[in-house]
Amino acid sequence: MIYLDNAATTKVFDCAIDAAIQSMRENYFNPNATYCGGVAVKRNIESHREAIAREIGAVGGRLYFTSGATEANNWAINFGRKNKKGNIVITAGEHSSVYEPAMRLKNGGTDVRIAKLSPDGTVDVNDIMRLVDIETALVSVIHTNNETGVVNPIAKITADIKSIAPRAFIHSDGVQAVLKTGDTIDGLGVDFYTVGGHKLGAPKGIGLLYVRNGVNISPMLAGGGQEYAMRSGTQNTPYIAAFAAAVQEFNRIANRNEILSLREKLVKIFEDNGCGIIGSGENSGYILCVHIPEVKAEILQNLAYDNGVVIGKGAACSGNKRGNRVLEAMGLSRTVAEQCIRISLCAGISDREAVEAAHIIVECANSIRSNHIG
Amino acid sequence: MIYLDNAATTKVFDCAIDAAIQSMRENYFNPNATYCGGVAVKRNIESHREAIAREIGAVGGRLYFTSGATEANNWAINFGRKNKKGNIVITAGEHSSVYEPAMRLKNGGTDVRIAKLSPDGTVDVNDIMRLVDIETALVSVIHTNNETGVVNPIAKITADIKSIAPRAFIHSDGVQAVLKTGDTIDGLGVDFYTVGGHKLGAPKGIGLLYVRNGVNISPMLAGGGQEYAMRSGTQNTPYIAAFAAAVQEFNRIANRNEILSLREKLVKIFEDNGCGIIGSGENSGYILCVHIPEVKAEILQNLAYDNGVVIGKGAACSGNKRGNRVLEAMGLSRTVAEQCIRISLCAGISDREAVEAAHIIVECANSIRSNHIG
Repeated sequence: MIYLDNAATTKVFDCAIDAAIQSMRENYFNPNATYCGGVAVKRNIESHREAIAREIGAVGGRLYFTSGATEANNWAINFGRKNKKGNIVITAGEHSSVYEPAMRLKNGGTDVRIAKLSPDGTVDVNDIMRLVDIETALVSVIHTNNETGVVNPIAKITADIKSIAPRAFIHSDGVQAVLKTGDTIDGLGVDFYTVGGHKLGAPKGIGLLYVRNGVNISPMLAGGGQEYAMRSGTQNTPYIAAFAAAVQEFNRIANRNEILSLREKLVKIFEDNGCGIIGSGENSGYILCVHIPEVKAEILQNLAYDNGVVIGKGAACSGNKRGNRVLEAMGLSRTVAEQCIRISLCAGISDREAVEAAHIIVECANSIRSNHIG
Repeated sequence: MIYLDNAATTKVFDCAIDAAIQSMRENYFNPNATYCGGVAVKRNIESHREAIAREIGAVGGRLYFTSGATEANNWAINFGRKNKKGNIVITAGEHSSVYEPAMRLKNGGTDVRIAKLSPDGTVDVNDIMRLVDIETALVSVIHTNNETGVVNPIAKITADIKSIAPRAFIHSDGVQAVLKTGDTIDGLGVDFYTVGGHKLGAPKGIGLLYVRNGVNISPMLAGGGQEYAMRSGTQNTPYIAAFAAAVQEFNRIANRNEILSLREKLVKIFEDNGCGIIGSGENSGYILCVHIPEVKAEILQNLAYDNGVVIGKGAACSGNKRGNRVLEAMGLSRTVAEQCIRISLCAGISDREAVEAAHIIVECANSIRSNHIG
């Protein structure tokens, strides 16, 4: 099986598994206990927090561990406003874990505004600027879109917004961007930033929210006061250890130039075979959204699977919904959107396998077309 | 080292570690992906959910996995009301992950009422009935208190409340009670019930909220729609597997009569040595709160540690706060509360070790008293 799907990107690194096992077997003490074993576990948590901050370039803020990116995104959207009555601006390209909490606030009466996407997959910056005003309390712009891999220019957007809405906090969902764009988090100028562990080789169930120094956010969970009273609940110490190990390993093995060059090879194979690439904006390199004319993605996905290649369609996290909100916001028709597959590359993937897989996908597509079953 | 602390109760069972490892190594697919590997992982989640429901007697509701008990408690308190304007009744004996979210709502203008504790450690049922009225939207009563081990008669309380406040939902925090009282969850008649994994041999970072069939609660996290759209976020599949394995193992090895009989032995040792037992109500057997006259718990804890015995004081989760809200609500002075230690027993502990530890604690206390350093 060749995995060009988020299965590949959700594989847990061996070093992360080892770190989790060691923590479960030996350092199972409650980090909030006041005797020696607990204190040692607490010290471990802090050293992992510092290691992660160094690796992802986030020393200008505090990192609060969460149960994953969805929790961190919900936290920022629900609690990341100084002025609870101010409006919120998001983009049509947000992941559902930003989009849905915002819709929930909107249903509760909050003024939520949605900026358009450009046909190249980036957010329409002029539209953001049109929507933002002095009453804007929070803006959330995804860093790398999870369907297309297109990277938004967060540092520029942040600076532009702050010039007209100085009281607004800026959040960015960086799940698909951390260690995959060349940016540091500190360098983006954002107030809040979401990181998910399982796209970086950690297990599913760990993430964090970066909160820039000097910025206040209300706690996500109330209780025993863990995580500096911002996110109560006994810390998931095995996964925090695994997260730190994974991020360090990811940084060691990831080479963005190699990924970008592999992506270009795949782009050429698909374009040479009459397929279109969705999202021409700057790409992280890790995601490739391909339009396969006349072939429904679902059917292609199944046939490719039978031929040893696992690919995605739309976001796995919303796999059961009809249509595709993000691709349609880029101006694609629903018909075209339903003919789009998503290829995810992971650090350490072999060029040979990925290229072979691309050819298999093309053959499967041809076979579906010639049988008129697409 | 003899652990009579929550370290003992937070040790992860080997079978749970093995289940987590197997999941991380082999079944790392995203459970929401629509191809074979993902579908198999999703099926695993459902079979683990069913196994847990059977083991804890919770087949009359749906179990939603969370990142732990704190999240489940926050969820119930924040979102467990049909009528958002109705009052909330909690007790003075609640864990901080119920108490603090309720205080947060109170600060936001919600009418939050707090029922007193009786000197025996149970909640004062007459006081609950006095506070509940037709406008009550939610009542939360801890099942087994985490500081004293005292068990509240939840089934009776639930029936009494429903007779005068039929629209109220009833929540119970069962972290220290599940599989430790002889009750099934279905048998309690509650609408919501919190279970934490790490008191049952699962790793820290997994728990669940039971929602009785026919009862509605708003989602905890919005996003991709996982957990039947009630708790979005990619599921922590390794810990769900570990949770199921742990609960089954706990049920296999736990013997409440043995624990109750061991607790009685320890009670006798402490009483014979001039110490008092805090909380005379029915006990789960797993917790023993002991008043050591004239000796500060913190000093005793350190000396016992140096002599090979790990004990607790207050809740580890709020180890840094002064005083003890729960013990003081039972009528103890702050001075007495600060002289109370907490002993936690775990399934499978040996009588010999626990008895030896109790004698060591008594000797340490005597030594502190004779040196006048308490």
